[in-house]
Amino acid sequence: MKLWDKGFSTDKKIDHFTVGNDRELDLHLAKYDVIASKAHAKMLGKIGLLSKKETNDLVTELDKIATKIEEGSFTIEDNFEDMHSKIEFQLTVALGDTGKKIHTARSRNDQVLVAMHLYLKDELSEIKTQTKTLFDLLLNLADKHKRVLLPGYTHLQIAMPSSFGLWFSAYAESLIDDLYFIEAAYRIADQNPLGSAAGYGSSFPIDRRFTTQDMGFETMKYNVVAAQMSRGKVEKATAFGMANIAATISKMAMDICLYMSQNFDFISFPDELTTGSSIMPHKKNPDVFELVRGKCNKLQSIPNQLTLVINNLPSGYHRDLQLVKEIIVPAIQDMKACLEILTFSLKEIRVNENIIEDPKYDYLFSVDTLNELVQNGMPFRDAYKQMGQEIQAGNFTPKRKIKHTHEGSLDNLCLKEIREKMSKLS
Amino acid sequence: MKLWDKGFSTDKKIDHFTVGNDRELDLHLAKYDVIASKAHAKMLGKIGLLSKKETNDLVTELDKIATKIEEGSFTIEDNFEDMHSKIEFQLTVALGDTGKKIHTARSRNDQVLVAMHLYLKDELSEIKTQTKTLFDLLLNLADKHKRVLLPGYTHLQIAMPSSFGLWFSAYAESLIDDLYFIEAAYRIADQNPLGSAAGYGSSFPIDRRFTTQDMGFETMKYNVVAAQMSRGKVEKATAFGMANIAATISKMAMDICLYMSQNFDFISFPDELTTGSSIMPHKKNPDVFELVRGKCNKLQSIPNQLTLVINNLPSGYHRDLQLVKEIIVPAIQDMKACLEILTFSLKEIRVNENIIEDPKYDYLFSVDTLNELVQNGMPFRDAYKQMGQEIQAGNFTPKRKIKHTHEGSLDNLCLKEIREKMSKLS
Amino acid sequence: MKLWDKGFSTDKKIDHFTVGNDRELDLHLAKYDVIASKAHAKMLGKIGLLSKKETNDLVTELDKIATKIEEGSFTIEDNFEDMHSKIEFQLTVALGDTGKKIHTARSRNDQVLVAMHLYLKDELSEIKTQTKTLFDLLLNLADKHKRVLLPGYTHLQIAMPSSFGLWFSAYAESLIDDLYFIEAAYRIADQNPLGSAAGYGSSFPIDRRFTTQDMGFETMKYNVVAAQMSRGKVEKATAFGMANIAATISKMAMDICLYMSQNFDFISFPDELTTGSSIMPHKKNPDVFELVRGKCNKLQSIPNQLTLVINNLPSGYHRDLQLVKEIIVPAIQDMKACLEILTFSLKEIRVNENIIEDPKYDYLFSVDTLNELVQNGMPFRDAYKQMGQEIQAGNFTPKRKIKHTHEGSLDNLCLKEIREKMSKLS
Amino acid sequence: MKLWDKGFSTDKKIDHFTVGNDRELDLHLAKYDVIASKAHAKMLGKIGLLSKKETNDLVTELDKIATKIEEGSFTIEDNFEDMHSKIEFQLTVALGDTGKKIHTARSRNDQVLVAMHLYLKDELSEIKTQTKTLFDLLLNLADKHKRVLLPGYTHLQIAMPSSFGLWFSAYAESLIDDLYFIEAAYRIADQNPLGSAAGYGSSFPIDRRFTTQDMGFETMKYNVVAAQMSRGKVEKATAFGMANIAATISKMAMDICLYMSQNFDFISFPDELTTGSSIMPHKKNPDVFELVRGKCNKLQSIPNQLTLVINNLPSGYHRDLQLVKEIIVPAIQDMKACLEILTFSLKEIRVNENIIEDPKYDYLFSVDTLNELVQNGMPFRDAYKQMGQEIQAGNFTPKRKIKHTHEGSLDNLCLKEIREKMSKLS
Repeated sequence: MKLWDKGFSTDKKIDHFTVGNDRELDLHLAKYDVIASKAHAKMLGKIGLLSKKETNDLVTELDKIATKIEEGSFTIEDNFEDMHSKIEFQLTVALGDTGKKIHTARSRNDQVLVAMHLYLKDELSEIKTQTKTLFDLLLNLADKHKRVLLPGYTHLQIAMPSSFGLWFSAYAESLIDDLYFIEAAYRIADQNPLGSAAGYGSSFPIDRRFTTQDMGFETMKYNVVAAQMSRGKVEKATAFGMANIAATISKMAMDICLYMSQNFDFISFPDELTTGSSIMPHKKNPDVFELVRGKCNKLQSIPNQLTLVINNLPSGYHRDLQLVKEIIVPAIQDMKACLEILTFSLKEIRVNENIIEDPKYDYLFSVDTLNELVQNGMPFRDAYKQMGQEIQAGNFTPKRKIKHTHEGSLDNLCLKEIREKMSKLS
Repeated sequence: MKLWDKGFSTDKKIDHFTVGNDRELDLHLAKYDVIASKAHAKMLGKIGLLSKKETNDLVTELDKIATKIEEGSFTIEDNFEDMHSKIEFQLTVALGDTGKKIHTARSRNDQVLVAMHLYLKDELSEIKTQTKTLFDLLLNLADKHKRVLLPGYTHLQIAMPSSFGLWFSAYAESLIDDLYFIEAAYRIADQNPLGSAAGYGSSFPIDRRFTTQDMGFETMKYNVVAAQMSRGKVEKATAFGMANIAATISKMAMDICLYMSQNFDFISFPDELTTGSSIMPHKKNPDVFELVRGKCNKLQSIPNQLTLVINNLPSGYHRDLQLVKEIIVPAIQDMKACLEILTFSLKEIRVNENIIEDPKYDYLFSVDTLNELVQNGMPFRDAYKQMGQEIQAGNFTPKRKIKHTHEGSLDNLCLKEIREKMSKLS
Repeated sequence: MKLWDKGFSTDKKIDHFTVGNDRELDLHLAKYDVIASKAHAKMLGKIGLLSKKETNDLVTELDKIATKIEEGSFTIEDNFEDMHSKIEFQLTVALGDTGKKIHTARSRNDQVLVAMHLYLKDELSEIKTQTKTLFDLLLNLADKHKRVLLPGYTHLQIAMPSSFGLWFSAYAESLIDDLYFIEAAYRIADQNPLGSAAGYGSSFPIDRRFTTQDMGFETMKYNVVAAQMSRGKVEKATAFGMANIAATISKMAMDICLYMSQNFDFISFPDELTTGSSIMPHKKNPDVFELVRGKCNKLQSIPNQLTLVINNLPSGYHRDLQLVKEIIVPAIQDMKACLEILTFSLKEIRVNENIIEDPKYDYLFSVDTLNELVQNGMPFRDAYKQMGQEIQAGNFTPKRKIKHTHEGSLDNLCLKEIREKMSKLS
Repeated sequence: MKLWDKGFSTDKKIDHFTVGNDRELDLHLAKYDVIASKAHAKMLGKIGLLSKKETNDLVTELDKIATKIEEGSFTIEDNFEDMHSKIEFQLTVALGDTGKKIHTARSRNDQVLVAMHLYLKDELSEIKTQTKTLFDLLLNLADKHKRVLLPGYTHLQIAMPSSFGLWFSAYAESLIDDLYFIEAAYRIADQNPLGSAAGYGSSFPIDRRFTTQDMGFETMKYNVVAAQMSRGKVEKATAFGMANIAATISKMAMDICLYMSQNFDFISFPDELTTGSSIMPHKKNPDVFELVRGKCNKLQSIPNQLTLVINNLPSGYHRDLQLVKEIIVPAIQDMKACLEILTFSLKEIRVNENIIEDPKYDYLFSVDTLNELVQNGMPFRDAYKQMGQEIQAGNFTPKRKIKHTHEGSLDNLCLKEIREKMSKLS
């Protein structure tokens, strides 16, 4: 049974091609369709298009479906096109004509839209929470290992002293920036599109303020054409937000893979977090971090993928927009899995405490020595020349006792200030 | 003269390859290098690394350079690698040893970074202002043409009545969402990175709070490694922000090109805003809007372009990051040009007032008729079936007098509410 | 049982994260792992690392597995990491120590690689065949409708006369170009990587010429590091090839959606190939073509997605490369589905034969009139000016009898030559 | 003077926005417009639309312009929209009415198209030549350093012995694959589009076979609509081709940057090929290779950029297509610069010959030892277990004398076979 069944049998091939894997994806969204259907039913009651009894019956039945969804016993069989058809079918089986009335003054277009908005709000909140958990862990690790020095690289060349304190908290502070985008995406999602119907509104005197409030939206997307236009756009906003977090995490995973290499040997993880090789018995590979990197790089391709699907379409609904769901839903699952596994694994990180003692890192300290000359009065460019000559002549001996005091430096990590910056996020 | 000259002549080929078009791009950024250099000089004075006189001399010379830049007489000759070299050279010519001292406790890395942050803040503000101007125009046009009906399409099929009121204000309300991202990008840019030096801070007791305040940054990027990591990332944030506006504008341009086609004939523009053909004398082509669309589609590729350049690089500076400048600066110019030309052109739009009278648009009104049946008590699905049969039998006559009253619909555009939503943006 | 099991239990979470949906995807690839395993076993026999009996036993067991795969009864249970583990397990169950010996002188890395190369060869061949079927249909349609005129647009403005003959065969000829890329991808896939082991070859005296010939590869990827480097790259080559076909098909689908709109009304399809609306009973929407467009646009994002995953990884295997499989396998299925459904649907296309008689298309004929003036001796620029004035004064009357005779024009479609060009493809 | 000037002055703003940087880009293309104009003039003579004298005069004048272009004295002033306007203007100044006649039976659309096709053919040939030069160098370096061992990595973990012989020639063999795509792109470009006029052919009896032969095209794009459709598509094909080479080169540059790091220290370059730091006097940075990597990563974004600009446009010319030129022309220059500088720099590479003696590389040899056990009769899985236990107990001593004999392995690089594979490219 499809909502738009017109009497003539549509070819099976076509059917298979057009429905795709909607049923599977809809299991993520069904909960939100029920929430929106309840709000819609109550609103229809309020404006008199449903009787009190009809409204109550619909709400009761929808609550039963919600319970089924929560318990995992809700299913969408092959003879239903999607969750919307299935839910409406169940209401009709249970309530007869009353069930049919739920579709009054709405369209499948705005049903899909509102369910997606509610879904994204929940997922964006979850992503934010997970990111904050990772942030807290990183700051704790920074604090714990703050005195362990690490070579700092520029151009992958040994450059200046860094520390695990700096390294861990750098990723923490970067994540704050990423959350600004998650917040922007949330704000875009937090606007009720219900009532836009097929994209041009309805001749029924529906009460959109009521549904906005009932579903807990901050505001509504007023213009019905704008509401329809948000299809694809709100998902893209979410994808942009995730791409930023993914970029930060992917970079950290790249560092980890490098630092675990025998050529760096800065950090390690317990065996349970590494994997073996089918042919090299001594290998303990950083597969988890490689997959975090790879999945996060794939996540960075999602905005472009969405853009390609929705770009250069004139205004109004097009069926192409259905494909957006199959892109964004798995991407969100990937994002959450990466955040979870990274937090889970990073807890077990082991830091090598004597890295910097290797003589190949001597030159790390040249700049600090140079700065001493300057602080003793030599113009910078002259000091720079003198140091260069010393080094080329092999006369340079490092003074390893360093002290960096300014904000955000080795000995003044400003973890409190970074924590405060994060706490200003709503 | 290059800052890192080590005595041996670097091969010309290499020189040409590595410098690229930096000099040209730096003309956009020089102003901001001067601002940051002044703040740095004052800070060096404050912490006693420069005498009062030295500080004053540097500030005075830098002001002179600023004036030159404003007047357009500042140039970066071929023997300078970039603006930083040129400005430092000028300070040294004017002030001798004092000039050399400006580079104390900073690195070219953080010079570039801070100049970019200041530049992006200005450009993001300008983009926001331009977007708001376009927004205001769109709302005015919506108000002016609010009673002119337009066919609403789904699947590019004639679907339901829409109006120019809805069409113009839909794009306006969409732009608000886009500005949430511009705001997020601004917030990311509004953090002082100066003091991160080559990416690992400095052994000098620099005062980063002072420079943060002096340059008008909201806060600082505390962690010096995080500050360095923002290279590429802050530009990508800007690119994400622009990509959203670009998507909205590109879609509107697509609509315009379609609506100007003789097959729609909904709108037109004066001859001055169209262009001709080399072979078809009657053509009046919407080149401006096609180029807005094309440029905005190109703008949507920028985030991915930046991602490809900076992705999978371990932490720390890499020369690859220099390429970011040549991607973001022209993209910003394109964004501003598109916003300007679209606003400029839309002012002249002419709306065809009788579109809807063409009988091919009759079916637009079928849903409203169906809704009447429902409001008179027929269950939706039954009404739907009856209407379908009437239409298939050719018995349908449209009632063109429609009244949509709910929020955001044809006769209740909520322009005031949309305006208020925009005004909540900082 | 995982190949790399080292005795300590790897955390479940990690296990789930790292294995992903490999088992599901491997059902597409298992057939090819068996082919390669047979070739490998025979080669081990040839060089004396297996006895004749061992070789025969392995080949016999592998044939049994191949039969199971073909019948659809081969499964990969949750306790197996992937098809490779499962197949090796089955060989060991059936043959004991002999089963264990199959992994001699190879690594899972080159197993995956060679299976992917064999898989891609088959799929690229299938895509080529499907494309040629579509090509043939398009040429037949071009021939059938060659006399039906169609307005030709530039800038979406009515420009010059075109025809269905031109329109159909334009897409056909474009597909030839696309197949050049499919051929290039095939050539890249048609090189045996087996023998590269973990990416650095083997100390066993394996005979790669034998396996190359046995599996029907045109040549081998000689260098073992290059063979390993082809991971990701051969998939990307396939994706590039598909992106070209997808671009052509997507454009055609865009035209179809436009031409089906009531504002064009150039073509139509039987009801079985269109879908309805949940709210507008008169709608017959081109969902199939919208989904072809959308899926093909998604397909055009695959090269970039793969690039992001594999880019900036140093040489040698990384676990990130595993993700390539989950990108390319579904993309190939989508490509084939789009080609199939488009061919299936286009067979039913109905062409409106009287399009051009609508007076709004009069100006289409202005250029031909201008050309007549030129052929009668007036310089082009002067003729151009005169025509422009006539048109602006409203004095232009079209002569609808046109005759374009040159190669590839309205009345000389060169379908035979286009067919010949296609036939030159290997 | 613009070709399509209709008498009313187009607004300056619009003019600036629409013309863009076409004039600058056209200096790359002007040579090819002249070639095509000559062929067109000769063809017009052949079919009697020009007299013999007119034809000769045009050819003579065009030759003069060609000379100017070659000498670098051809300019496109601001009052010309593009090279086409300027060249036609010059012909008219020199030849009066005859000059005006050059535009008979062609459109600016097919002028641009044919010039682009000719330009791309030349550039693709040049890229192929440069790639072959790099290929030859890599094979020579492989041969020269074939006995120098290098650790082979998987997961960035030390895995198995590799060699500079393998490393250099791996990139060489990879480049062959990339050239298959360059060849496909060339084949697409090598089809004459001239005669398609504005995209729908011409009513003049033009002789496209003549111009095809005269300009040295292998064949023509017969269908005029297909010819027009190649706009954007032929540039995208070129971009795909370049993206493949860029991916290979970028990966090599990544390896180089890693191998130059003090943590690897496998290779070095003379000072002339490295750059210094403004603050760390001892640094010798691999800027050249970082920029090769960065530019090649940017090059990999070009296909997607082009796709975004041309995607979802219905058939027929749109002004958006003009933007393609400003994307592809600089990209080609970047590609050539990267190939040139990489070849130039690699000649100077210095290889560290004693890398493998460091004890941290001992485990590289574990697999070969394991293989010995197998060759002495132990089943692989048992040998694997025994080795694993030895290693975990710390009882493993490497035998550094290794011998890999199979095709493409350490001691059998198959350089001759790789060279032959390349030589089969047309």
